[in-house]
This record gives sequence, structure tokens and C-alpha cells, in this order.
Amino acid sequence: MTNQTDAPNKEHKRILTGIKPTGIPHLGNYVGAIRPAIESIQNSDDEAFFFLADYHGIIGCYDPAVIHESTKIIAATWIACGLDPERVTFYRQSDVPEIPELAWILNCSCAKGLMNRAHAYKAAVDINTEKADVDPDQGINMGLFGYPVLMAADILMFNATHVPVGRDQVQHIEMARDIAGTFNHRYKPLFTLPSAVVDEDIPLLTGLDGRKMSKSYSNTIPLFGEPNPQVSAEKQMHKAIMKIVTNSQLPDEPKDPDDSALFEIYKAFATAEEIADMRAQYAAGIGWGDAKQVLFDKINSEIAPFRARYEELMANPKELEEILQMGANKARRHSRKQLDKARRAIGIRPLAKLK
Amino acid sequence: MTNQTDAPNKEHKRILTGIKPTGIPHLGNYVGAIRPAIESIQNSDDEAFFFLADYHGIIGCYDPAVIHESTKIIAATWIACGLDPERVTFYRQSDVPEIPELAWILNCSCAKGLMNRAHAYKAAVDINTEKADVDPDQGINMGLFGYPVLMAADILMFNATHVPVGRDQVQHIEMARDIAGTFNHRYKPLFTLPSAVVDEDIPLLTGLDGRKMSKSYSNTIPLFGEPNPQVSAEKQMHKAIMKIVTNSQLPDEPKDPDDSALFEIYKAFATAEEIADMRAQYAAGIGWGDAKQVLFDKINSEIAPFRARYEELMANPKELEEILQMGANKARRHSRKQLDKARRAIGIRPLAKLK
Repeated sequence: MTNQTDAPNKEHKRILTGIKPTGIPHLGNYVGAIRPAIESIQNSDDEAFFFLADYHGIIGCYDPAVIHESTKIIAATWIACGLDPERVTFYRQSDVPEIPELAWILNCSCAKGLMNRAHAYKAAVDINTEKADVDPDQGINMGLFGYPVLMAADILMFNATHVPVGRDQVQHIEMARDIAGTFNHRYKPLFTLPSAVVDEDIPLLTGLDGRKMSKSYSNTIPLFGEPNPQVSAEKQMHKAIMKIVTNSQLPDEPKDPDDSALFEIYKAFATAEEIADMRAQYAAGIGWGDAKQVLFDKINSEIAPFRARYEELMANPKELEEILQMGANKARRHSRKQLDKARRAIGIRPLAKLK
Repeated sequence: MTNQTDAPNKEHKRILTGIKPTGIPHLGNYVGAIRPAIESIQNSDDEAFFFLADYHGIIGCYDPAVIHESTKIIAATWIACGLDPERVTFYRQSDVPEIPELAWILNCSCAKGLMNRAHAYKAAVDINTEKADVDPDQGINMGLFGYPVLMAADILMFNATHVPVGRDQVQHIEMARDIAGTFNHRYKPLFTLPSAVVDEDIPLLTGLDGRKMSKSYSNTIPLFGEPNPQVSAEKQMHKAIMKIVTNSQLPDEPKDPDDSALFEIYKAFATAEEIADMRAQYAAGIGWGDAKQVLFDKINSEIAPFRARYEELMANPKELEEILQMGANKARRHSRKQLDKARRAIGIRPLAKLK
């Protein structure tokens, strides 16, 4: 880290990435989020804050066992995939009580009309209004309606300068800027306006059935496998890859790599040279079974060392908890100061110094 | 206090009262809120939590100096008027960081539709919709929209059983019950459902101009006076009382006490015997000037000792801060435990015990 102070610095980047701990990561998450986030930090000297967004997780998941287990799985996954908790401030959102407190303060600098226009809220309303006799806000809780404010608190707490997001999340960063601007103007210029960073080059993986790989389609290749003592994680991955849908071309028939999910996933793991070689093999008529085996070997060579570390961490939650507590301590060194500044700006401070 | 545990107890009452620290208390606040709240606690062995609701204050007041100064004035006022901080847990809301954290958790158990129906929000929308070309949510922030959830956190944090409120606040207690019910049903029965207590006998004072005494009408009699070194607080009160509007009846004309604001205010301070005596004096034609002087003497005999203590506290903010810190420590003995239970219920807990 090149700069440990809270003062915004024109040349200094502070990256912040939130990870929602609901569900078990799959290969699409690895290729689309985990690997690029970790690599981009390893290849820069930017400051980085990564956090497990469990207070976002409870908006839509009411099963305490899932929240708890997912937090463990996601923390283990990111550490196993190479996130260096000495290099990155890696913490659980709920270990930083200053965040929900700041969220309340920011509520008072956030127009309700801004939240009315949030995509996720509007999409939920649209589903309701298509039904007869249903209140537009049916099934929508105040967490869903107000979470862009919590997200603003996540970001503004640390004066993050850059927030890598998917295209659908850009609006949230604009909202955080809007809220920060209102507060800065009304009280004092305390919060850095964050910028959204959208990386268009990150591959979106195709799932087993040819649609986008997504938990909601049940078409995913597991990254480290479901907790299942009967089948090893490696075998689970092999089995899933063998199920990827292909066309009915026979071995030796020349195949079009650009029309193949197998090839697309291969590209996400192979070097340029390996990709060119595989393209030639498709033209030469490699059989689908062989192509799948090559794909598995390629992915597995990258994932296997991470998988070993993952299993080690999952068996040793104490180590994980220690890592998260170290991160919380680092995060709170910033958040305590920032919250105190925000409180003083709005008029909340002791009536007198004691002792 | 008869019961220090958090366990709800059918026969045991736990009273909770929030006080919004915006503005300077007047005689109407004293008669309508401060005196009855303090007396009702003195005359019972119920447990009591009284708090300065500064995180509610920031919803509508963006002036940090007003928030800070009001907190000091209101704390000094309640202590001066006899609130015993040994007997009552008396704290500043913002000294209990568990409250905004619980508010976020409760957001996720609160239907947005419930907030759409809140009176204060609906009143603000009604004002906007009467204007042409104005968004219904114009000028409404997320604090105003979501504050019933913060209020639910204030109440449910301490498992308060009884919340004394004005008639216009009953809806908020119903909302707290609704949110508690959702959480209890979804996770585990953690929160006591609070009951609203509306005391119909508390007098509503008439102001100087004959309308209800209210800061918004600028028709108030100051309780301890505005901070003004040129005029003593006692003189300010005297001057205000002398300005109370009367009719033009002359001395010796018999007067109708039930048509007189003077008499109404007198009733709020006098014994039954004194009231009967004054009624006779009205019939006998007491002059308005004399009636005002008697009223001043009556009020001043009750207020003068409090005024002295108030001025002492205002000159010694350290003593006030110590009192508030003692209250915060008592409050947090409950709130830390309650928040921990709520967090565990939703699935937020350490991955392993450390040490």
C-alpha cells in the first residue's frame, strides 16, 4: 500500500469491492469476479478494501444457516483463490458497526425520490404491477428499498475512489455520488465522490445448458464443489464439465469453436497460444469427449491448488475468523475516524471533554 | 428498579420515552410532557428508559449548532425538572451505536408498504400533491420515510413494554409491533411487542394568542428562557405571561374562567382548592393584570428551583456529559446483548471462537 492516510489523493486509487455472501461460488463467479479482482490488485499498488456484504445478504435471504455458511464459504473461496489479507483490507461488513450508523446519517441526506428510481426496486414493482390486485410494493422490504444508502455508506466510509461493478450496478455508484454531494454541500466536504469502474473485457461464462452461467438457471460448474463427502470436489467439477451441452457432430467432423460453450470456457483459462492450438484442433475434428477432458484438465490445473487451500480453510474456521478480525481491525481504523467526522459535521459530539 | 434482566415479565413494566432535541422547551412541553413523564416514574416502580433522540433530530434539522445546543438544553431541562438519572436510564441515542445497527436489521423485516402509510410521510406527500408540477416525494429524505423503523429499533432494543405517546404517535407503536411480529415469526421470538400508552388527562396548554401553545405559532411561554444575558429567565417568563391575550373586560366585571387562557394555564399548576378559589375570584371580577401576576407567582414558585438547577447545569456541561455517559453505559448493557441476539438470529456470528 502506498498511502495509508484518509486524505483523498488525486493520484492515489482506493478500490472497494463488496461480495454478497449468499450461495456457493461457481466457475462463472471465479472468472467474472474473483480472479479479475484479485489479479487487478496484485498487479497494482492501489489500496484495496474487499468486504463480505452480509448486511446486504439479509435483505433477501432469511435463512440464518445460509447466511452463516455462505459467509464462511465465500471468505474461504477468496482467500484460497489468492486474496492476500495482508495486502487487501478484507473484512466482514457486520464487523464494522460504523457502517450501519453512517447509513442512517446518509438516509437524511438522500432524497426518497432517488430510491424510487433504483433499478432493483423498480424491477420488483414492475413484476407486481403486471399482476392483478397486487400492491406495487408487495413483498418489498425496507432493506431492498433502502440498500443503495447502505451501499453508499460502504463506499463513502472509506473514501473509496474506484468501485469495480457490473453494468447493472453503475446506478448505485451514481447514487452514492449524489448522496455524498448532498452531505458535502450541506455540512462540509467530507466524502470523496467515487467512480464506477466497468471492465468490459471480463468474460461472461456460458452455463451447462448454453445460457449464461447463473445460479438461478441451475446450470453452473461448481468452483470448489458442493459440500458433499461422497463425491470429491474434483469429481464434481469433472462431472459438470462432462454435462456441458454440445451439438451432435461426431469425432473427426470439423467443428466451429466460436459456436461452442466448451471453447468459450477454455478461452477463459488458456493462453493465447493454447487457444490458437485448440482452434486448430476443432478444425481438425476433435471429439466432444476429448475436448471436455482437455477443458477439465486445463481448469483443474489452475483450480486444484486453490481447492486444496479452500478445503484446509473450511476445515479450520478459526484461521478464517482470525483473518476476518485482522481485516476488521484495519477497516475500523478508518471507519471510526470517518464516522466521528460525519457525526461532528451534523452536530453530534460530546457536550464536554471528560477526563 | 425492580427488575434488571432483559427477560419480559408479564407484571413488570418497562417504560421508554424519546425526546427529540430540536428547539428550546416551553411551558407547554413542561406541562404536557416533561412533568407528567417524570412524575409518573417517581410514583411507580416501573423501569424507565428516557433518551435524547438526536438521530431523529437530524432528519429535519441540518444545522449542527442547533442539534448540539438543543441536546445540551434538553438534557439540562429534564435533569433540572427532577429526572433522576440513577432511577431512570437516561441516554443520548447516538451514544448507543447498537440502535442504528438494529434499525438496519429491522429494515429487512419491515414491509415498504407499511412506511407508505405512515402519517408523517403521507402528510408531506399531501402538501406536495396540492402543488402543480411537484413530485409527490419532493423534499422528503430517506430519514423521514424510514424513521418509524429507527423508532422501532429504539423500542425493541430494550424490550420496552409501554411507550407513552401522543395520539398522533400511536401508529408508530403499531408499526413497531408489526416489525417485531415479522422478525419474531421469521427468526425467533426475540422482541417484546410494545403497547402505546396515551394519557388523555394531560393538559394541552393554550398559547399567548389563544391558539394551542406551539413553537410553530411563536406563542409560547419559555420554560427557562432563551439564552439571553440581558434579560433574566424569570423576567422573560413574567413578560410572556403579561402578554397573554385576554378580552377587554374591566376590573370588577365578573369574568368567565372557562373562557380564559389564563385560568386554563393556572389550572395546570394549582391544587383543586386553589382552582376553586381562583374560580371565585373570577366571578368576583379580578382584574386581568392581577390574574396574570397570580399566575406568574404560581408558575414561578414551581419553576424557580428547577431554573436554578438548569442554569447550574448549563454552566457545567461536564456534569451533563457525565450523566449522559452513565446512562449510555447502563443502556448499552442491554443493547449489546439484544443486538447480539438479533445478529445471531439472522445468521451473523463469528465463524469460530477466538482465544
